[in-house]
Formats: sequence, structure tokens, C-alpha cells
Amino acid sequence: MNNYLEMTKEELAAEKANLEEQYKQWQAKGLKLDMSRGKPSSEQLDLSMPIFDILDGEASMRCLNGVETRNYGGLEGLVEARKMMSEIMDCDPEQVIIGGNSSLNMMFDTIIRGYSLGFAGCTPWCKLDKVKWLCPVPGYDRHFAITQHFGFEMINIPMDDNGPDMDMVEKLVSSDDSIKGMWCVPKYSNPTGIVYSDEVVKRIAALKPAAKDFRVFWDNAYAVHHLYDEMTQIPNILALSEDAGNENMVFEFASTSKITFAGAGVAAMAMNNKNREEMKKTMTVQTIGYDKVNQLRHARFFTNVTTIEDHMKKHAQLLRPRFELVLEALERDLKPTGCGNWVAPRGGYFITYNAPSGTATRIVDLCGLAGVVLTPAGAPFPYHMDPEDSVIRFAPSFPSLEELKDAADIFTVCARIATVEKLLHA
Amino acid sequence: MNNYLEMTKEELAAEKANLEEQYKQWQAKGLKLDMSRGKPSSEQLDLSMPIFDILDGEASMRCLNGVETRNYGGLEGLVEARKMMSEIMDCDPEQVIIGGNSSLNMMFDTIIRGYSLGFAGCTPWCKLDKVKWLCPVPGYDRHFAITQHFGFEMINIPMDDNGPDMDMVEKLVSSDDSIKGMWCVPKYSNPTGIVYSDEVVKRIAALKPAAKDFRVFWDNAYAVHHLYDEMTQIPNILALSEDAGNENMVFEFASTSKITFAGAGVAAMAMNNKNREEMKKTMTVQTIGYDKVNQLRHARFFTNVTTIEDHMKKHAQLLRPRFELVLEALERDLKPTGCGNWVAPRGGYFITYNAPSGTATRIVDLCGLAGVVLTPAGAPFPYHMDPEDSVIRFAPSFPSLEELKDAADIFTVCARIATVEKLLHA
Repeated sequence: MNNYLEMTKEELAAEKANLEEQYKQWQAKGLKLDMSRGKPSSEQLDLSMPIFDILDGEASMRCLNGVETRNYGGLEGLVEARKMMSEIMDCDPEQVIIGGNSSLNMMFDTIIRGYSLGFAGCTPWCKLDKVKWLCPVPGYDRHFAITQHFGFEMINIPMDDNGPDMDMVEKLVSSDDSIKGMWCVPKYSNPTGIVYSDEVVKRIAALKPAAKDFRVFWDNAYAVHHLYDEMTQIPNILALSEDAGNENMVFEFASTSKITFAGAGVAAMAMNNKNREEMKKTMTVQTIGYDKVNQLRHARFFTNVTTIEDHMKKHAQLLRPRFELVLEALERDLKPTGCGNWVAPRGGYFITYNAPSGTATRIVDLCGLAGVVLTPAGAPFPYHMDPEDSVIRFAPSFPSLEELKDAADIFTVCARIATVEKLLHA
Repeated sequence: MNNYLEMTKEELAAEKANLEEQYKQWQAKGLKLDMSRGKPSSEQLDLSMPIFDILDGEASMRCLNGVETRNYGGLEGLVEARKMMSEIMDCDPEQVIIGGNSSLNMMFDTIIRGYSLGFAGCTPWCKLDKVKWLCPVPGYDRHFAITQHFGFEMINIPMDDNGPDMDMVEKLVSSDDSIKGMWCVPKYSNPTGIVYSDEVVKRIAALKPAAKDFRVFWDNAYAVHHLYDEMTQIPNILALSEDAGNENMVFEFASTSKITFAGAGVAAMAMNNKNREEMKKTMTVQTIGYDKVNQLRHARFFTNVTTIEDHMKKHAQLLRPRFELVLEALERDLKPTGCGNWVAPRGGYFITYNAPSGTATRIVDLCGLAGVVLTPAGAPFPYHMDPEDSVIRFAPSFPSLEELKDAADIFTVCARIATVEKLLHA
């Protein structure tokens, strides 16, 4: 196979005819494959089944400090659940507040607090004419959906392999007090899989925001979700921001959704003192407390950091071949064409293919017509608008290896067709 | 014992001395008893322990329509969980949306939607200069805490044994478009235990609100929480309001907090079409879905309406003697004095003692100094202000019968002391 950029129009036309033949054969198979969402597979869910049998009658329903988990009370979460989540988030147990089963819900609730009640005595955002939000791109579609829901103006921040463009972030945050927040997925970022560099984390912690109520939403969703034995660490943003005089600038989020059960895990937030006091004031009004029995199940299952690491290695064994299968298909079929690029992630749930500009929508459409559902093109961008129409997100976790093999093969055919079409019409 | 109202000052002074002697003896015992919150007892929690063992391996983790409960998805809740909650709320399963473990949290979230996004295309309440809310009194302190949290002006609506004063409600709601909502606990009301009459329910359903976004928050917290064999029913407010042209005026709430586990139950809302569509639009942004495994546990435990009724009879067997013990103490010690009054509830979690005007705070303080914690006087009113300083709420569910006997005896001593003091200073 040759580099497409070096081909003549005739050669490209021949390649196109060849690819379209392959595409037809795939279409004829009538497959139905889904790589659109980062869902754990059944095998992954099975890893945590002992959790459901871990509680042994009423005698064991009390947590370490005596709280009866079956009854009301314990608003911040069980002491052992806070410890467990602090190990995942690499922070102090005292900084942690446990929520329900969804960290996204905690993010939504936190933005709602800024919106309706205000942070640190500042005017609630609902009373302001304009609220702006920094969105490193490509990013997580559900983050952007929240800030869009409240009508915030979202500003794209380009990312490279080290994280967001910090020159741009620093300039914007220090000069515009209508910028109230920033989304971050610092480790194994959704969707590119990159890890923020230490330098980037430090610069975020040391921001000098014009707005006193500027808040970093640090979604550490993949904190322990390594694919390989090296367990990448990032600096502790809560400690760093405190050192930099930004004690209350950061809300950190995590959950066990992709550690135990996506539908029945435990979510948590970590933050420094004043933020926590403010949050508890609202929580007291908002709820009678989250499900403590499920917290207890989880904390009994993960008794220390080693049990978490061992458990995540079992996930990695299931995930790694899926990631490698997709990456091998990209290497095999797309690398030689000289078109498009990607980073091989060392953790997380996604692979991003950066297609030639203007081809992503076409590739996703072609895949769809051949029975492979991908995340819609544009989804990793605010307002679903990818300015280059080039980013495609794969979620390889859920399908079986057999399904994934077909899906990856179909994908590379579609990617090549769209690229050839583009070059022919250039 | 004589009627206090017929006693001379001398007789009252002698009674006071006698009561103070009893009070001192109680104080000397150094008891610590808590009747302040409506918490289920340990024996009640034990009734539902089989729920934790009901799931039997991965084969059984799918719900009736095939949803894998351990994974993402199923935003509205499992089909069997919606059916279960519809039986508790006496409505259609299609009207139900399942939440986390706290119906209070669903109420908070619903008010947040009106506040930040608006209902039915109306201006979000956060953009209005004034929002008013109707609060039947005495009522549930946590309801009032929510509406206070958002700065709504709360208007007291007096209640009698049939429910809120509907003449007042109708007049206010039809004439003032800044009135956006009303709290209701229609069955075994917190704290009086009264049940809204059919007439009152019908008049609420047929309100003619000046505000298009006026909403009734129908907290059916004690829908199946009968103390006796007769199972009081109230008319179906969702059907009635639809018939009356108020299709989207009512949000109904319930949970299994006092059916299974206060700390790990299942909460739900029921509402008509447009409200549900609006809610789902927000939910899609707000969460990845609530804990479906816990929904499955509950739905497998309560397979039909009879299993729920039988289970609630077991609760009643534990609760009834506690209620009757307190009521007997009131009959024995307070009835003869001719002071104060109460209703004997047929369900729910509370007994209200209407003390002589101006004595409630004193009674609660006296109890506290003798080791009996009661709900603070004023708590069942907006802003914690009981205009008559007369309402005292008992929560007899949590203490043992032995503890409760002491607490009730101490209470009647304190109530009589405060009453005598009042009469002596009149």
C-alpha cells in the first residue's frame, strides 16, 4: 500500500474502487456493532460480583465508627468509603465527600450550586448576563452537555499531548471574570487518552483567576484505570492549588463506575475546607444522605490500595487486547496511507483517531451504514461542533474481541474511503 | 387529678411543686432518650434483610425487559421498579421515574429545575424578584428548609383534620402569580398524622393557579404506612388534576426509605406527560442513571401489591405499640388537665401534641434537660417560627418500648409543669 499523499488521481480512483468493493462486502454481512460509549463489558462487571455477597447479616451493617448503614445519617459518607475514594483520588480522606452512584451527577449538582446559590459569597451565576467556561478539546461530551444546559458560553481550548494550551488558559482566566470554570480530565483524558504533564497540572493549580468564584472541575475519572503495569501518576492538584493560594479553586471527582459497576458504583468528590463547608450546607438541605449500604459493600471489598490495584489489573487484562486490536488495525491500514494520526493510550477508555480535516462526519456515516455505530462526529466538542471535522472517538471496551476485529476493519475501510474521496475532490 | 383550668392558684402551685419533685427524680436518672427524628428502629430494618441476598449471580442481573442492571443505561428506572413504585403511589407505571435513595433529593432537584431552567417554558424562578410558596402548617421541616434555601417567601396555611384551609389556598393561588408551589403530605401528614379528605384532594386538583408554572409537591411519603388494618386511601391526584385541566400541576413523590432501608432504599416520582418529558431532558444531562441493582433487589422482593401490604403489616406490628404507649401516656396524664390536644394517627411516623399556647419551647427545653431529645419547638413551621409556640412533634419509631415509656412519662411531667407555670403567670 502506498502513501495516499503521493498517489496520482488515477491511483486514488483505483484505490477508491477497491475500497468500495471491500465496503460492499462488509455491508452485505449486515453486522450490528457498537463502539460508541465507554461501557465496561460483561466480563469486567463479573470481576466485582463478590461485592454483592460481602455483607453478612445485620451484625455487619455498621461501619467502622459505628454508623448504622441501613438507617438515616452519615451525610458525608462512611469513614471507610471516604478512605477508599481518597486512595483512588490520591488525597486525604477528610477531603472526600461520598455521593450516589454517579460522579457526573455530582458535577451537575456542583454547577447547580454555583448557578443558583453562588460560591464563596459571589453572585450566583444565574444572576449574571454571561457565564463562560473553558473546554479543553477534544473532551467529554457529557461535560459539555451540562455547561450547555445552563447556557454558558463554552470556549474551546486546544490540547496537545501534554494537556490544554496553558498560555491560552492563563491569559483568558486572568483577564475575564465572566469565565467561571474549566473542565479537565487530567489522566487518560476522554477521548484522546493523554495525561496532563506535571508542568500543566502545576500551571493549572497556580492560575490567577480574575473571578473569585472560578472553579476547576477536575474529573479524575480514570485515576487508576491503567492499561499497562506502569501506573502513571499526576501531581496532587488539591495540595498544589492550596500551596499556590488557590485553596478553593478545585473540585475533584471520581467514581467506581468503571472499577466495579457502571450502574451501581460509588461516586465521590474531593475538595478543600471552605468548598466542603459550603457543599455540606447545601447537602444538608438536599438529601437525607446517599446509599450507605453500597458504600459499605465497596469499602469492604477494597480494603486498601493494593486490593484496588490488583482489581484494576484484572480490568486491564480484559481491556488491553481490545485497545491493541484497534491500534494494530490503525497501524496496519492507516499508517501507510500517511493520513490521520492517533496516540496509543496507556489507560482510560478511549482511542482518538484524528482523521484528515473534513472527513470525520463522512467516516462516521460510512461506518453507520455498514453497521458500526461510533460516537457521532463532533460529540467531543462543545455544541457538537468539531471545527476541523476530524476527531473520531472509539470506545473499544464493550464489544467482544471478535466484534471489535470486524468493527476496526470496517472502520479503516471507511476512513480510507473518506480520505481518498477528499483527496480526489481537493 | 383535676382540670388545671378549674384550679385555684394555690392548687396550681401545689401541683407545680409535686411535678417538680417528679421532674427532679427523672433528672437524677440521667437518661438519654431521642424522640426527635422519624427513623425506623433496628427491628424494622431487620424485616428487609432478605433484600440483600435476593440477587443470585450474574445470570439474574438483567431486568424484565433485558436491561443489564450492572451497566449504564435505563435512565427512567427498571420496568419492574416503576411498577413497584406505581403500586405504592397508586398511579400508572408509565407515570413513574425512579431516582436514587432519597425522595427529598428528588424534591430538591425538581425545585432546582424550576429555579434554574423553568417549567413549561416559563421564566426560571431565579430570574424573578419574588417567589412565594404555600406551606400547610404544621408540616415537614425538611420541606421548608428547601424552600428557605432558595429564598422563597413561605406562607403558612393552617391545617385542620381534613387538610389545608382550601378557601385560603384557592384565593391565594388564583390571585397571585408569584406563588409557584405548595408542599403537601396528604396521607398521615408529617407531623399531625391527619389524612387529607377526598374533598380537599379534589379541590387541590382543581385549583386555578394564576401562575402557569405553579406546582403541587405531593409528598406521599406514608402512602402504605398504615398502623391498623384499615388501609386508608386518598383519591388519585394525578388523575384528578388531569381531569380538571391541570395536567402538569402535580409532582408526586415516594420512597421505600420507611419500607425497606432509610439509608439504602429506592425513591421515585410520578407525574404526567409534559412534566416527565421536561424532567427527562434534564436527567439526560444530570446523570448516567441511578443505581439499578438496588432497584432490582427491591422489585424482586416486592413482586406485587400483596407483598408490599404484608410487609407493611410487619412494620405496623412494631410501630403500633410505640404509638399507643405515647398516646396512652397523653390520655392518662394530660387529658384530665383539660390542656392541650392531639389526634391519634392511623399511620405515618409522628404524633403531634398541641400544647397550650406559649408553652412548646418551654416543654421541649424541660425535656432536653431531663435527657429526652424532642424535635425543636418551631421546627414544623417555616423559618422555625410557630406563631402560637404550641406544636410539639414526637417520633416514637426509633426508641425501644422501655425507653419510650420513660420518655413519654418525662414528657407529660414537662408538659404539665410548663402548663402550670403558664397558668400561674396568666
